[in-house]
Amino acid sequence: MKLLEERIKKDGKILDDGKIIKVDSFLNHQLDIPFLEKLGDEMYAHFLGKKVNKILTIEASGIALATVVSQSFNGIPVVFAKKQRTKNIGSNVYTSEVKSYTTGKEYTITVSKEYLNEGDRLLIIDDFLAEGQALRGLIDISNKASAHICGLSVAVEKGFQGGGDALREDGYDLLSLAIIDSVKDNKIEFRR
Amino acid sequence: MKLLEERIKKDGKILDDGKIIKVDSFLNHQLDIPFLEKLGDEMYAHFLGKKVNKILTIEASGIALATVVSQSFNGIPVVFAKKQRTKNIGSNVYTSEVKSYTTGKEYTITVSKEYLNEGDRLLIIDDFLAEGQALRGLIDISNKASAHICGLSVAVEKGFQGGGDALREDGYDLLSLAIIDSVKDNKIEFRR
Repeated sequence: MKLLEERIKKDGKILDDGKIIKVDSFLNHQLDIPFLEKLGDEMYAHFLGKKVNKILTIEASGIALATVVSQSFNGIPVVFAKKQRTKNIGSNVYTSEVKSYTTGKEYTITVSKEYLNEGDRLLIIDDFLAEGQALRGLIDISNKASAHICGLSVAVEKGFQGGGDALREDGYDLLSLAIIDSVKDNKIEFRR
Repeated sequence: MKLLEERIKKDGKILDDGKIIKVDSFLNHQLDIPFLEKLGDEMYAHFLGKKVNKILTIEASGIALATVVSQSFNGIPVVFAKKQRTKNIGSNVYTSEVKSYTTGKEYTITVSKEYLNEGDRLLIIDDFLAEGQALRGLIDISNKASAHICGLSVAVEKGFQGGGDALREDGYDLLSLAIIDSVKDNKIEFRR
């Protein structure tokens, strides 16, 4: 998606020799909501025919994007997996183990069984895809609920880390709105 | 707000003798986006004349509500405070210490200095207000940034825990869309 690639070039910050590409001025710390709406519309256009009835994402950065994608899909429910088990989520839950690329830590993601059902047709959304661990955790939880996965979509895929291609090889319909294939001399190259 | 009170009565679950009121079927685990839009419109109507230019919230449950409030305000930026310091947020940050009512743990909330400025006129949003610790943390960070706080708004205030009234006594314009004053024999009483 040209618009997103241009925004990443304009506002993205390359840290740690390309290992980290910061887009927190518009995507995952400060949020440019009208811009996210445009990303949401693009995701909607791709998955339009798939009879998606629910959006599954993960706290925290996926939530704003999932919200606007829901709006494109006429307000279907969003469920977000929690990274921390709180007192009040109860024990009737699906869980999966995820290793975070950003923090380096393992954590458990949790979704209440009440909100994922066998008949659900899910679109799984996140802001970023690197090694694909968070998406794998959400897929695992969807499978445990016997829900159907219509597809996966992220704003930014770091293609050079391989997580996205591995998911495509596994047969998932994965839409990444911008795929960064390399970062050389502080210059970002997108996949064509 | 009648609509929210009715929804809490219909879908809210009372746990632990009223200490916990779960509204995670529509507000903070599964999200009913069209319903949240109505809450957002109500917040907009209250703070309309205050020249709000940015929304400040905290991950994770505040983000969806902040997103739709931003839309009511014609797409002003949302900034969400992070509960976990990640590798890539950097050191140029404001922080504040918060004790969570839900988990019982202390944690540090963090906002990059890039996204809060002296001229900002903030509306601080969260889903829930109990003892007010999260809002106090966001106020502390806003003050550190010398930003102006136009007001505070939450969907649900647990009035009997006193956090909201303490904020009102401190002079803040706090709009809670539903204030639960007591839970007796599994019956929720709202403040009139």
